[in-house]
Amino acid sequence: MSNSDAKQGESASLGLTVKKSENLSEWYQQVVLKAGFADYSPVGGCMVYMPWGYAIWEHIRGYLDSELRKLGHQNAYFPLLIPESLLKLESDHFAGFMPEVAWVEHGGDEKLQERLAIRPTSETIMYYMYAKWIKSHRDLPLLLNQWNNVVRWDTKSTRLFLRTREFLWQEGHTAHATKEEAEKEVFTILGIYERLLRDALALPSIVGLKSEGEKFPGALFTATLEVLMPDGKAVQAGTSHHLGQNFAKVFDIRFLTEQQTKEYVWQTSWGVSTRLIGSLLMVHGDDKGAIIPPRVAPVQVVIVPIYYSEQDAATVTVKAKSVAQRLEAAGLRVKVDDRADKTPGWKFNEWELKGVPLRVEIGPRDVVKDQAVLARRDTREKIQVKLEELETRVQALLDDIHATLLKRAEDHLVRNQWDIEDYEQFKRVLEEKGGFLRASWCGYLDCETTIKNETGATVRVIPLNQKPKHEKCFRCERKATKLAYFARSY
Amino acid sequence: MSNSDAKQGESASLGLTVKKSENLSEWYQQVVLKAGFADYSPVGGCMVYMPWGYAIWEHIRGYLDSELRKLGHQNAYFPLLIPESLLKLESDHFAGFMPEVAWVEHGGDEKLQERLAIRPTSETIMYYMYAKWIKSHRDLPLLLNQWNNVVRWDTKSTRLFLRTREFLWQEGHTAHATKEEAEKEVFTILGIYERLLRDALALPSIVGLKSEGEKFPGALFTATLEVLMPDGKAVQAGTSHHLGQNFAKVFDIRFLTEQQTKEYVWQTSWGVSTRLIGSLLMVHGDDKGAIIPPRVAPVQVVIVPIYYSEQDAATVTVKAKSVAQRLEAAGLRVKVDDRADKTPGWKFNEWELKGVPLRVEIGPRDVVKDQAVLARRDTREKIQVKLEELETRVQALLDDIHATLLKRAEDHLVRNQWDIEDYEQFKRVLEEKGGFLRASWCGYLDCETTIKNETGATVRVIPLNQKPKHEKCFRCERKATKLAYFARSY
Repeated sequence: MSNSDAKQGESASLGLTVKKSENLSEWYQQVVLKAGFADYSPVGGCMVYMPWGYAIWEHIRGYLDSELRKLGHQNAYFPLLIPESLLKLESDHFAGFMPEVAWVEHGGDEKLQERLAIRPTSETIMYYMYAKWIKSHRDLPLLLNQWNNVVRWDTKSTRLFLRTREFLWQEGHTAHATKEEAEKEVFTILGIYERLLRDALALPSIVGLKSEGEKFPGALFTATLEVLMPDGKAVQAGTSHHLGQNFAKVFDIRFLTEQQTKEYVWQTSWGVSTRLIGSLLMVHGDDKGAIIPPRVAPVQVVIVPIYYSEQDAATVTVKAKSVAQRLEAAGLRVKVDDRADKTPGWKFNEWELKGVPLRVEIGPRDVVKDQAVLARRDTREKIQVKLEELETRVQALLDDIHATLLKRAEDHLVRNQWDIEDYEQFKRVLEEKGGFLRASWCGYLDCETTIKNETGATVRVIPLNQKPKHEKCFRCERKATKLAYFARSY
Repeated sequence: MSNSDAKQGESASLGLTVKKSENLSEWYQQVVLKAGFADYSPVGGCMVYMPWGYAIWEHIRGYLDSELRKLGHQNAYFPLLIPESLLKLESDHFAGFMPEVAWVEHGGDEKLQERLAIRPTSETIMYYMYAKWIKSHRDLPLLLNQWNNVVRWDTKSTRLFLRTREFLWQEGHTAHATKEEAEKEVFTILGIYERLLRDALALPSIVGLKSEGEKFPGALFTATLEVLMPDGKAVQAGTSHHLGQNFAKVFDIRFLTEQQTKEYVWQTSWGVSTRLIGSLLMVHGDDKGAIIPPRVAPVQVVIVPIYYSEQDAATVTVKAKSVAQRLEAAGLRVKVDDRADKTPGWKFNEWELKGVPLRVEIGPRDVVKDQAVLARRDTREKIQVKLEELETRVQALLDDIHATLLKRAEDHLVRNQWDIEDYEQFKRVLEEKGGFLRASWCGYLDCETTIKNETGATVRVIPLNQKPKHEKCFRCERKATKLAYFARSY
């Protein structure tokens, strides 16, 4: 009795004080902070990635890095600081990033001759080097990637993982001999990102192109992946840009062809960031806390020994540790929570808050019967299994949890897309339902700007191979040329 | 004949134009640039880590990260930018780093209310958070590490990998309940570093303590590893600091003990950086280029098919690829150089320059006889092996190459240590021979400063368990309390 009271008292302070459906924003912040994914820092707009959150990034990095290597991409590292004169060379690019640049003006006591930008992205510093390195068609394609930190001095309010002034990401930068080869790269990468989201993070996404107003400053076009949050707002989860020859001309990146002519290279750049962590937390979690998709979970299986006497404690804990060893040998990430000063119920709550996908409970009777109870984080279902089939069942359950999370997110995505006929309906659906608003659209920047200013919604993505359903733009009556997905976004 | 002429012409422009023994500094720069480990950038003092150099860092990171995890350390990530007020809190620390800080004063067009330092190291920003997180003895030890970039606006001239204004490193920061536990951590880490150097980088080091003049600003004491370069100058390869309670008192990091008292924590911090890459390149290379120790080599085995007819080309290349597959299946990093526009000789030169530890040559006769020729990079010895024993022989040779590189470096280290009797001899040996000068020393800061100013040599390391051999200091006649190793350093 007193045990149960204590448990409730503890779990109340540990647990969430708000439901996900009632206040998503507050729920999200509580999950991130209370489960120890991240913390605010004393630097306005910059966050601390705590071990529980950083580990997810390490798994994302492991998955993606391996995919990129298979296609011949290599990692490198370029300087953090970019001379202003270099950043200025491509004017659209500079205009796009200028308002968000953090500037270094002093080194020690000495005023610098030229101020240096902390990289908001690395096109300019990298392409200065590319011009030096690329001489011949034999140097192409050049396929480089870097895992680093960038700073964008955003004035909007901070949201942990989703909007911070410094964040971690990877940025790939490639140079090719032809426009077609660069275009192929843009969509190859988009495909890799889409699979990363679906297969590792259990996140479905809508892929396609950005509009003129939303494309990367300096790009020919931008391909994007958009993920839908529970409140109907979109998150841009990754982008892949066809840079054409814009930067090549500015930085004079030319190569000698086999025919001995000199040509400018065609380039791409692309990236995903730690926003992905924010996205998966917001999509998958529930009122008990986070639910981390198994393939990127820092701990995939937590084992909680359950006992009510000192005598049982030893037996059960020994069993728990041997079970852990078996699961680790099967390649899983496992933790035994053998803290003596916490009740099993307290531990259940804590690991549910932290989002471990599967819990194994082992009590004295389980030891005798050579069995264990598996508790799924996603459905909260409990399953009794014989230890002889432990590894198989655990692996199957983790796969099923992944599939279930993905299916839930897919259902949400499907249920929250609306076909829009006209601007009045657009505004009404946006207010009442949110989600993706599919509309036949003219594609003009002025129309896009008007919609953004009047409603706060932007063109998130224009899927390839989808045609407008009406002749005229849903808002401005010009000819409809695209089927665009509008939404409000993070 | 013409083939051979072409080869010589090509290799002359590709290869090194200076011998290692004649001009180490120029030799080093040529190796780093021509082999593609790194390049200069348009930002003064900052370098580009090219894939061939960055990959070594990834292997160092893989080795060390795994060792740190085994002991319970976790990775995290803290902000790049540190408010000046925070950096100032510990006065020795601030005084030490202040002259080298790069300051951010503007975000976009807006002048910041307080200027922000780009981290030269992360004690202050991390310990601000530690004060928030550590409440009870149950929160200890806290064992965090981060892999990141730091900036120190050094005014000395740049040397690729060895001295740059931005560099990559890891910084570990731990908090403990007792002074003894922190001290144990300092030396545990020193041991891990020592093994990293010896077992992965084939670098012997001298370990011990730093003097008062050389210890970390804000530390109780600093433990260090020093590696000797071919010119007799030392490189500080890693440090591990006992911070005592200095930072804990300044940042108010206190915990509730089991006895319900409040105590300040005891802390350590420690790091190794991409300097390690510069050190191993400088120590192991020869007049043909780099020699990368096998365990951190981006490519451990390069396979060069050798043929003089189109007909042979196909057979030999197929064989080369099947050999590569076998070696990859054995867990090795392998590359087949099947470029059709380069001669075997050209390829040999290039991979020797780049430092691949083992080359496999396969010609038409080898295919028939089911054999191959292995060429060691370190001794340039060629060994004919039967393909049936390929994996075993290659693995054994790689281990032997590691052992040979380590032995060479150990011999150099042993041969370049001198017992010093007095200051005149000290100055003479320093000029004529360099290396480590072992001297019975008083330990006083004023004596250390005088020696540094007069000779350019500093106390590199004071090994534990070595006693002074004379009663009096070799320079100032005060009582000798330590046996100190002096050297000039990078």
